[in-house]
Amino acid sequence: MRCGAGIEARQVNELFINIDPIQAGGRLTADAMKAVIAYGDGYSVCDNCRKPNRLDYINKPPIADFHKDVAKWLNMDDVRTVPGARRGFQAVAQTYVGKGDPVLLTSLSHYTEFLAIEEAGGCVREIPANENRMITPEATAVKIEEVKRECKKDPVLAFIDHVDYQYGNMHDVKAITKVARQYDIPVVYNGAYTVGILPVDGKDIGADFVVGSGHKSMAAPAPSGILAVTSERSGEVFRTTAIEGDVTKRKFGIKEPEMMGCTLMGATLVGMMASFPQVKERVKHFDRELENNRIVLEALLSISGTKILSQYPRKHTLTRMDTVASFDKVAETHKKRGYYFSNALEEKGIVGIIPGATKVWKFNTYGLTTKQAQYLAEAFIAIASENGLFSQ
Amino acid sequence: MRCGAGIEARQVNELFINIDPIQAGGRLTADAMKAVIAYGDGYSVCDNCRKPNRLDYINKPPIADFHKDVAKWLNMDDVRTVPGARRGFQAVAQTYVGKGDPVLLTSLSHYTEFLAIEEAGGCVREIPANENRMITPEATAVKIEEVKRECKKDPVLAFIDHVDYQYGNMHDVKAITKVARQYDIPVVYNGAYTVGILPVDGKDIGADFVVGSGHKSMAAPAPSGILAVTSERSGEVFRTTAIEGDVTKRKFGIKEPEMMGCTLMGATLVGMMASFPQVKERVKHFDRELENNRIVLEALLSISGTKILSQYPRKHTLTRMDTVASFDKVAETHKKRGYYFSNALEEKGIVGIIPGATKVWKFNTYGLTTKQAQYLAEAFIAIASENGLFSQ
Repeated sequence: MRCGAGIEARQVNELFINIDPIQAGGRLTADAMKAVIAYGDGYSVCDNCRKPNRLDYINKPPIADFHKDVAKWLNMDDVRTVPGARRGFQAVAQTYVGKGDPVLLTSLSHYTEFLAIEEAGGCVREIPANENRMITPEATAVKIEEVKRECKKDPVLAFIDHVDYQYGNMHDVKAITKVARQYDIPVVYNGAYTVGILPVDGKDIGADFVVGSGHKSMAAPAPSGILAVTSERSGEVFRTTAIEGDVTKRKFGIKEPEMMGCTLMGATLVGMMASFPQVKERVKHFDRELENNRIVLEALLSISGTKILSQYPRKHTLTRMDTVASFDKVAETHKKRGYYFSNALEEKGIVGIIPGATKVWKFNTYGLTTKQAQYLAEAFIAIASENGLFSQ
Repeated sequence: MRCGAGIEARQVNELFINIDPIQAGGRLTADAMKAVIAYGDGYSVCDNCRKPNRLDYINKPPIADFHKDVAKWLNMDDVRTVPGARRGFQAVAQTYVGKGDPVLLTSLSHYTEFLAIEEAGGCVREIPANENRMITPEATAVKIEEVKRECKKDPVLAFIDHVDYQYGNMHDVKAITKVARQYDIPVVYNGAYTVGILPVDGKDIGADFVVGSGHKSMAAPAPSGILAVTSERSGEVFRTTAIEGDVTKRKFGIKEPEMMGCTLMGATLVGMMASFPQVKERVKHFDRELENNRIVLEALLSISGTKILSQYPRKHTLTRMDTVASFDKVAETHKKRGYYFSNALEEKGIVGIIPGATKVWKFNTYGLTTKQAQYLAEAFIAIASENGLFSQ
């Protein structure tokens, strides 16, 4: 089946159990699918755009209300939609980071935070994770002192990933933020794996900025995301344009330079809005997701030699495994080498693990039903058994 | 019909002839609609992402080929997709514009170009349009000399809109570019109203950068667009990341800071790809579009007092009218005031003109069939007639 010349229609989620680490929270809801058709044209949301002519003021469809609802939901003061979490990082970095300014990241930070700082001309300083791959408030304080000595100035921003993309570990962002605030360092809470997945309370955390990803965790089309801010920071990152044409003397009203004017339109925005009621509901039931994750992990850990690299018990469904001493041993002599593992999974209707990977790999059980989790657990056991891992 | 809580499904293009000035070239093709469903999930395009792990290297769906095809089609060397034309402007401005650097725009430039320069810290200098609302190479040369005297440095960039958003006038961008190049000023060709609408040859024009809008003119979902560059500029605006983690010594391969890594995914990208064969074909038939536009304009101009503010004969279907001495005279005494005009149009199944506007307004006939254009022409005549504009 094709949806255009040379483009096969994708059916991954229709035909398989998909445990891809980054795809789990972004799958569209049925309402979002309806929305991307009804609002497929980008400027569709502009039908009823009236003065002051800015996206977040439009009432039909209810875009203005959506912005207010998201702010309230995250317990922050102001929200804008952005084309992906990375564009939220970029807006904040462009506002606060000058040439050579040090910016705190962590040794588990996502590459898009690095790029945002690079583009703004800043230099990165990573708070090191401890031996358990956790970022601690203590390490944060030590790093800040180190930066002050080395760079002769305080870090201008700190980007903290609540749940990191490498291990899916949940760091004590509230305690880390408390340390940063003692040095008056504004904190960007990276909620790419949390906003839309579990409850997030920006004020309780103490974050200046909360960034979320629509296509990673809010069941929305890409590129989409949100940037939520406190009232204190709103006038900074959402300042309105001050530029003026030298000949025409034109000004541009309440358009915001860091947002490049209006941001998301059509399918991306209305898709995010259409999924939002279900997203708000699902974050209340993350315990069920952890329970499904536990079912799969217990099966995996029953296979001798299999280790979990993520914190355990799990606090998030994104999980990193070490199977050097189990599934990878099979690969050494298997005629398909490492591909036997992903092939065997695919034959059982499971996709999402990098083909060929048998040493260290990630998966995400988010969104599976309990039945699917049980099936997945049995599949891992069966593959281990078929390849003699229980008879050793 | 709803597509989510509180979100009415939009049916504007199903129920009406839509002459909205900015919506005409962005309406999705049927293939794009299929694509937004099949690739609704953002990370859907990442199923087969392999090393070197960058969007424009993915072969399934054929994203790599699409990038090459677009570059060839525009006669440029390298292409990236971007979340809207404005993000293309931003990437170029961030690369070349330093604090206080003068940048050439025109007195008809779009606000997003201003914002891109503002965010980069530059100052704008507008090439003034002449009395016919045209930007000329002569005015460009005068302005460059003026900037050199006033700012003590050359403009670092020139943004030239081939067809401007205000009048839909087609400016001699090739001659203007020639002047800019004599001063070694890189030229950004703003093709928001041309790329995907009529043939564009970047090398013939002499542009360093060609920017197009997916949701404005390439029948693609929003936010989407393309940034095409010459090989000379490719290593500058598409330079790869040089940043490194101080603790982990991590580097990020061939990711590009101005693109913030990967750019468009899922519905936006595959929608643009799915429409591309039809877009490539339709640009060859822009003469038909102008013919339809002529049918409507002749009707409008037959109404006494009606003036066209755009260049005439038309070279683009986006057109600005002055009806102060015709439709606006009716509004003076009509009980619905200016709203009678848009109401009367809507009763005849026509939408897209700002409600209440009777003095100066824009419309776009792009994409209408000849029958629809004739119907639209008759509708304007009928409204004029019903309101006594022929009997005065």
